[in-house]
Amino acid sequence: MVRRIRPPPRDESADLTHPLVISIDAMGGDHGPSVVIPACAKALAELPDARLLLHGDEAQIRAELARHKELAARSEVRHTDRVIAMDEKPAQAMRRGKGTSMWNAVEAIREGQANAAISAGNTGALMAISKLILRMSADLERPALVASIPHANGMTTFLDVGANVDCDAARLVEFAIMGEAYHRAAHGVARPTVGLLNVGSEEMKGHEEVREAHRILREGKIDLAYKGFVEGDDITKGTVEVVVTDGFTGNVSLKAMEGAARFMYDELRAALTSGMVTSLGALLARPSLLRFRDKISPLPAAPLLGLNGLVLKCHGSADARDFAKALRAAADLAQSGFASEIERNMRRLPAALAPTAPASADGAA
Amino acid sequence: MVRRIRPPPRDESADLTHPLVISIDAMGGDHGPSVVIPACAKALAELPDARLLLHGDEAQIRAELARHKELAARSEVRHTDRVIAMDEKPAQAMRRGKGTSMWNAVEAIREGQANAAISAGNTGALMAISKLILRMSADLERPALVASIPHANGMTTFLDVGANVDCDAARLVEFAIMGEAYHRAAHGVARPTVGLLNVGSEEMKGHEEVREAHRILREGKIDLAYKGFVEGDDITKGTVEVVVTDGFTGNVSLKAMEGAARFMYDELRAALTSGMVTSLGALLARPSLLRFRDKISPLPAAPLLGLNGLVLKCHGSADARDFAKALRAAADLAQSGFASEIERNMRRLPAALAPTAPASADGAA
Repeated sequence: MVRRIRPPPRDESADLTHPLVISIDAMGGDHGPSVVIPACAKALAELPDARLLLHGDEAQIRAELARHKELAARSEVRHTDRVIAMDEKPAQAMRRGKGTSMWNAVEAIREGQANAAISAGNTGALMAISKLILRMSADLERPALVASIPHANGMTTFLDVGANVDCDAARLVEFAIMGEAYHRAAHGVARPTVGLLNVGSEEMKGHEEVREAHRILREGKIDLAYKGFVEGDDITKGTVEVVVTDGFTGNVSLKAMEGAARFMYDELRAALTSGMVTSLGALLARPSLLRFRDKISPLPAAPLLGLNGLVLKCHGSADARDFAKALRAAADLAQSGFASEIERNMRRLPAALAPTAPASADGAA
Repeated sequence: MVRRIRPPPRDESADLTHPLVISIDAMGGDHGPSVVIPACAKALAELPDARLLLHGDEAQIRAELARHKELAARSEVRHTDRVIAMDEKPAQAMRRGKGTSMWNAVEAIREGQANAAISAGNTGALMAISKLILRMSADLERPALVASIPHANGMTTFLDVGANVDCDAARLVEFAIMGEAYHRAAHGVARPTVGLLNVGSEEMKGHEEVREAHRILREGKIDLAYKGFVEGDDITKGTVEVVVTDGFTGNVSLKAMEGAARFMYDELRAALTSGMVTSLGALLARPSLLRFRDKISPLPAAPLLGLNGLVLKCHGSADARDFAKALRAAADLAQSGFASEIERNMRRLPAALAPTAPASADGAA
């Protein structure tokens, strides 16, 4: 498969702050500043234009910054001693979240002080707070969450895995628009292919919403390379670059895949350490097994889609390498045409949703 | 975890034919009689009470039977030269299937000549033909299909993966009843635990149908060990023994898991054969890797649930060992209390579906 790779074009909407500013929840995740700050230092070395806003406990952040002079010079610390707990309920976070490091990180976007925000904190809370502060641009219950699933030759963009449980056809088409723009910005693919997740049964393919979304996408009024229905195993086959489904199916099947991968990994490790000869074999194969593990790891960060602003969720157990990747992903997205491409295609949605006129009508009213 | 293992009790409904008779579509699957007949010979050696009806091309079947005298003595060959193609559409199969080996295998159940039927042929066709001949006992679009997914200490029974796309709460409860009885019969677990698949988001757990099914199962009018909601990764964790979901989510997430497992297996093989030292390691680890592969293989056969009769689907690429396992599974199910346990619990369904009366009402009309 030949893919045209192009550098992400600069987005005019990214010029509200110049140079690029990324707003960081320094307290989020399992480790807080001790992981986030070294990660920022690592990432900033490759982002000569970027500056950071670091939200959180100033003493803890300064202690880490003392070891990273270059980062300290390009960052602004914004103190707060309030933090959203990893187990806080989204409703609680919305009521009591004001002034926390997560809240302040997101609010900096709304105030035009930053181009993107990143948190490794509580996903439900980040979704709820982001929706409250930035408001939705798309007509969704809550932001859509993208997962990046590895396949033999790259990554599949899979959404919604963020639990927009009830999705009509229009919502599925919105996911297609957002996922396609995300995949282009994140992976530099000019025209990502898109598929709609469905069941394999020949008869009565899927429910009403899926069939209606299929009809809309196939008609071509939305500007993307739609390839039709795909099945669950196409996600890891790389049949299409973007796989679209509702948040219920997406969340369940993402976790099912993670569970299957975890089970296989555990069984493999148990098998390879079960005897002396086998263990020697495992030792010899170790470098390959480590490369294997890297290959099957998904991306550590995902954007929340459908918001008026760019917020990325980094997974809670992220180490410095993961968080640095998330920062580079945020910079790539902020500097790409991502947001304006979504807006452009979203404007086509009302016409695409309208029932089709008879094929040979003359257009007389 | 301590499990009470008990031998499957004999079911009174299994006495319509004595000894046990299993009806075989000898032409189904990728290989036909050359695999099916040796598999039958292998399985029958462990089933002293069983007899077989072999449906298909008599010449081909007799050629194989010539090598298996014991099987030949305990089988009856029922000739037909008509076969359902692996790519035949279910609607076509229903119209034109009469007199094919698959059709005749299922019809023997309705005619009281066999206790169970097995086919490794086209799944959609088998579901359609079975529904047409046997009729549904449960109120479903089509039979529910069970998958058996390995976890560290056993197998998870997962249904519906057979694409009953639109499922209300009553359908989900029916799946719970059928899956629980199946798990007991197939795995000798006295009281299998049951969970309902849902998303992990704290707020607004799942859609209306899932929450309503949860309410019904929690009330306890249905006789089973319901443990509440589970998530996608619980399927391979073995958190509960039976995981229930609608046919859309079940089909997609089963295929997603299969895809993830296939991807990991391929990547692992590529990693382990990428260099000389690594390949030596892989060679030393080979016995463990083979045990690993066995461990992660699901069961080769699954019953179609909700029919007035026992039909098992064996996967199309089954080898003789797989098909023999399917035969033993059919015998276990036919001789268990499976069918009557489902019927008993299904009779509780109307009362369980009725809205709950106020807690301290006196029952005055």
